[in-house]
Amino acid sequence: VGGARFLHGLLRVVPASDVTIVGNVGDDFEPYGLHVSPDLDTILYTLTGAIDDERGWGVRGDSDRALARARELGDEAWFWLGDVDLGLHLARTALLRAGATLTEATRTLATAAGLEAELLPATDDRLRTVVATDAGELDFQTYYVRRQHRDEVRSLRFAGAETARPATAVLEALAAADVVVLAPSNPLISIGPILAVPGIRHALVQRRERVVAVSPIVAGAALRGPAGGMLRSLGHAVSPVGVARLLADVASALVVDVADVDLAREVEDAGVRAIIAPTVMTDHAARRRLAEAVLDAAGAGAAACR
Amino acid sequence: VGGARFLHGLLRVVPASDVTIVGNVGDDFEPYGLHVSPDLDTILYTLTGAIDDERGWGVRGDSDRALARARELGDEAWFWLGDVDLGLHLARTALLRAGATLTEATRTLATAAGLEAELLPATDDRLRTVVATDAGELDFQTYYVRRQHRDEVRSLRFAGAETARPATAVLEALAAADVVVLAPSNPLISIGPILAVPGIRHALVQRRERVVAVSPIVAGAALRGPAGGMLRSLGHAVSPVGVARLLADVASALVVDVADVDLAREVEDAGVRAIIAPTVMTDHAARRRLAEAVLDAAGAGAAACR
Repeated sequence: VGGARFLHGLLRVVPASDVTIVGNVGDDFEPYGLHVSPDLDTILYTLTGAIDDERGWGVRGDSDRALARARELGDEAWFWLGDVDLGLHLARTALLRAGATLTEATRTLATAAGLEAELLPATDDRLRTVVATDAGELDFQTYYVRRQHRDEVRSLRFAGAETARPATAVLEALAAADVVVLAPSNPLISIGPILAVPGIRHALVQRRERVVAVSPIVAGAALRGPAGGMLRSLGHAVSPVGVARLLADVASALVVDVADVDLAREVEDAGVRAIIAPTVMTDHAARRRLAEAVLDAAGAGAAACR
Repeated sequence: VGGARFLHGLLRVVPASDVTIVGNVGDDFEPYGLHVSPDLDTILYTLTGAIDDERGWGVRGDSDRALARARELGDEAWFWLGDVDLGLHLARTALLRAGATLTEATRTLATAAGLEAELLPATDDRLRTVVATDAGELDFQTYYVRRQHRDEVRSLRFAGAETARPATAVLEALAAADVVVLAPSNPLISIGPILAVPGIRHALVQRRERVVAVSPIVAGAALRGPAGGMLRSLGHAVSPVGVARLLADVASALVVDVADVDLAREVEDAGVRAIIAPTVMTDHAARRRLAEAVLDAAGAGAAACR
């Protein structure tokens, strides 16, 4: 959600044709055999104006007649799928079953939905986030949605990541980019599964000077979601410092919220340049200002405003 | 549809707990990987009062937000799936993916939907109707829905039928039944795939004296659907006589519409007792009267009215 909102601001600052978005697929899952890509969908819905802004996910005004019926018939139906939202999953599933890669399917759907920027899954190979808890290893959506991320996270792994190859278009975008932004998303479960693809990590390390991250942790807490508790239980500082240490090998700069200005020194001690800016995206203008600050930090402000 | 409407009348004449319905699964298919059982669903919707009576299939008042969205995103979406209808397919698919047989899944769904009679698929094994046309072999729904049954039918086969085993409950019902009714449905593609299961055909032959069929052909035409053209192109008479010849080895009697009274002799020449009755189900009362006529024909009227 944070990443999608950041992108929404970015696309008000740079032309959509200059932007390639690489999305996490570690959250993907297959309820009823339908292929759902929650992170790609949230980005798509946010950028095409379809998003339910209050919830941060799903389609505004969507109904849930299908799921309500499934529930009446005894199905647990714990993952909310709106009717219009289901249409996207049906179309994606049809494309994948007809042999399209996830990259191809995503491109077809995003184009049809009117997205002008390029949206890419990090990999076309199967990569799934697995969360180890005291209740055992849980697939991501079971941990996050079904059990409401209430379990303490003992460890994370990204099944399939070691052998996953980046989609070709991802490597091309990373090689050609003026700036690579790691959006203000959970560094462990949103950015982590992307960095877990060896080819992507390698490409970012190569271009580290052009990589700017944005801290999703402000004033000791995540703005949204379980990042805070998850960082803590995995032994990381719940602060931009913790984020800096996690991303230092791939990012040369971290945008830190003004509320955390006193942590700038510690962030820099982690080997990452600290850039102080307001990062809380309270409204559309704030999203835009954050995008500008990030591009400035990368020295790409001028180029972006051509 | 004819079968479902007949059953609707039957359940007004005999207690639901006395009725076991064996449905065709040759029409089943898996759009988007979801398991759709059109014949079982039409029966379920008809008997629970959910049916869209004008169309004869689907849920009355259903919306199609999911499918419309899939179509907007480029999917062909040629098989209409309403939103509420999708809920049934989602629930069924979840049950099957969790390891339930189709019999078990159908029972769970039918019970939850409030069906009191027992509804059984003919087999839990994969059996699919394949239609040979000048455009090649088509799976049933491609022939029927996508191409609007406009192709001339050169031959039919029921893939998987030779090795399909009847569900145990089907054999038990056939062995115990006072009367077995072959409902007024297309003898080739609705009843045919059921009879193609060797165990079911064998069971019916054993109990032939108790088996009564109802002709879906009246006055030289099918009341609904492509049965007329299909019988003709496959070399069968488009009349109760054609139906009698097709079903003579498993049925001892055929209910023939009053409009075809002059064909009674020819039906009997096929080795099947002809019972003349009004068979056109113009309203609920007509459905009920047809059920009564069928039970009378089987000599089970008195027993049924206990």
